[in-house]
Amino acid sequence: MKTFSAEYLKKVSINIFIALGSPAREASIVAEELVEASLMGLESHGITRCIWYFDECRAGRIKPGAPMKVVNETQTTAVVDVNFNFGQVGARKMVEIAIAKAQASGISCIVSRHCHHIGRLGSYTQRIAESDLIGLGSACSHKAGHFVVPWGGKQARLATNPISYAAPTGRNPVVLDMSTSMISEGKIRVLMHQGEEIPPDCVLNAKGYPTTNPMEFYGPPRGTILPFGGKMGYKGFGLSLMTMILGEAMAGEEITDEYHYLNGLVLIAVNPNVFGALRDFKKGMDAMVQYMKNTPPAPGFKEVLLPGELDFRTREERLGNGIPLAKRAWEQIKGIATQLNVTLDMED
Amino acid sequence: MKTFSAEYLKKVSINIFIALGSPAREASIVAEELVEASLMGLESHGITRCIWYFDECRAGRIKPGAPMKVVNETQTTAVVDVNFNFGQVGARKMVEIAIAKAQASGISCIVSRHCHHIGRLGSYTQRIAESDLIGLGSACSHKAGHFVVPWGGKQARLATNPISYAAPTGRNPVVLDMSTSMISEGKIRVLMHQGEEIPPDCVLNAKGYPTTNPMEFYGPPRGTILPFGGKMGYKGFGLSLMTMILGEAMAGEEITDEYHYLNGLVLIAVNPNVFGALRDFKKGMDAMVQYMKNTPPAPGFKEVLLPGELDFRTREERLGNGIPLAKRAWEQIKGIATQLNVTLDMED
Repeated sequence: MKTFSAEYLKKVSINIFIALGSPAREASIVAEELVEASLMGLESHGITRCIWYFDECRAGRIKPGAPMKVVNETQTTAVVDVNFNFGQVGARKMVEIAIAKAQASGISCIVSRHCHHIGRLGSYTQRIAESDLIGLGSACSHKAGHFVVPWGGKQARLATNPISYAAPTGRNPVVLDMSTSMISEGKIRVLMHQGEEIPPDCVLNAKGYPTTNPMEFYGPPRGTILPFGGKMGYKGFGLSLMTMILGEAMAGEEITDEYHYLNGLVLIAVNPNVFGALRDFKKGMDAMVQYMKNTPPAPGFKEVLLPGELDFRTREERLGNGIPLAKRAWEQIKGIATQLNVTLDMED
Repeated sequence: MKTFSAEYLKKVSINIFIALGSPAREASIVAEELVEASLMGLESHGITRCIWYFDECRAGRIKPGAPMKVVNETQTTAVVDVNFNFGQVGARKMVEIAIAKAQASGISCIVSRHCHHIGRLGSYTQRIAESDLIGLGSACSHKAGHFVVPWGGKQARLATNPISYAAPTGRNPVVLDMSTSMISEGKIRVLMHQGEEIPPDCVLNAKGYPTTNPMEFYGPPRGTILPFGGKMGYKGFGLSLMTMILGEAMAGEEITDEYHYLNGLVLIAVNPNVFGALRDFKKGMDAMVQYMKNTPPAPGFKEVLLPGELDFRTREERLGNGIPLAKRAWEQIKGIATQLNVTLDMED
């Protein structure tokens, strides 16, 4: 592990995205989204994603700087055609539109088309909450990202399809950002590299039988991941299907497109100020937060944590002590920078 | 068990609610909601709820026929003050408003105040879907219904707080209606009466340790129910908290009101027709349904079931064969009918 400041990683990745063809403002959005995820300890959506994005740009599947288009717009709704630009650039545009429309009309719903990987879904609901609105969000992935079975099935038909919400309080917003599956493929890969077992009840082998062996998951033939919920996995399947209904059927995208990795992002912003006074809403939120935090902890727990609370703590800690990166990941990022003639002369 | 036709149970319960003071139209709504839940096999929200509603009416906590009021209305949003009328009457009013506003403005959000038990949440999202909209819904309960702990805590701060969505297809809508807890208090009561154990990882005793003994759950001191998700119960807690943010903080209701059992219902209706053509949306939905249904089943499963599919099948079966009711429950309903001078002369 090496440790880097958020500032440094942001500068390096901005330069990488500019070298890949992004306008400075867009490069800065992608870099900020990745670094924020790394700061919060969510490295699966963090700075190491540079490596994949580089490949996707080179393959023409991400098109840095591609012009986005808002289509089918109404006072409360819009479709944002991201046109294969970086998913983060599209998602941030969607956040802006969602906020403006909910402030003007009470509620809004924005959906994406042709939107590449958006990174951390919770970032976008959080930004909505930071504008004193309630943010609801979901993201599905097209077929290229399908590892998860419908409940009762043995072939993958879904991705880890996260859902999220965020709401403002007097301090940090409450931010839930959860996948609708038992485990991510990325985590299984890490377990395999470390020679460890997969936790039970998370994964099936290609024949549909439970396994804890990463090698049996990867096959070939490849195994599958179970939807969230253990014996009640039909709930996780139901939630995952919702992300596809909103992000594919409603967005008018092909659910079986195998060519591209794409996300179907849907953001809903609700303005609490139209249901009552915003001041009263925030007072209610603070009372609720206190009511939850004051719960005496169960044996084995130190405290009740609100959704997102741990992520904000990790962020504070890493702003002070830096972001740790696996040596191999950093070598790969350096390799990309070298290929793109991006200098790394600050901390390394 | 005795078996009754839906028609008969509806007639009896309409007469009970009229005798309790409901106008005929409202009595018919409550009866229909209860009988539909019984038809779908969801007796916890079915006709046996008459018994509790009778007590709540007698105690003045349900006020049959009380005039409802729409407050803080905008083109996309409204607060419906149900004024302690039956929750079903309030919820159906909210459905009407949600549909009209989403058809006119693309999306709508309606929240309740002073709304008693609504019954089956999925009924309302389903009605929205039957108008070619996507329905999202959540319901929380005030303190009187709190059995569930925040993740990591050992005192109850939440109810089983369900979330739901429904979307139209070429046939029955997809309808997910899931509680955000591991088990309901009603189910634990049934297990106790049958002398059975509670499934593991669902319940804590009063000291916060896991137990499978219903007696240890009921105490006193009383135990608690865990949020949905097993080892990832923080996800269920997060979803449960969302129902309270929307249904209490946003509705402007007191989260710690101990006097009344009340639900905080929130319905969001989204009009797919503003994002693209409705025809294309439905085509996309049907393709997605087929894609899921075609998944080869895993060992131990016969088929992949869509959210709500089993409920619709049970409904078909019970429309033909009748609704089974426990003898004791039927005796109680008869007792109420007798007290209210309601005749039962059709099937019994």
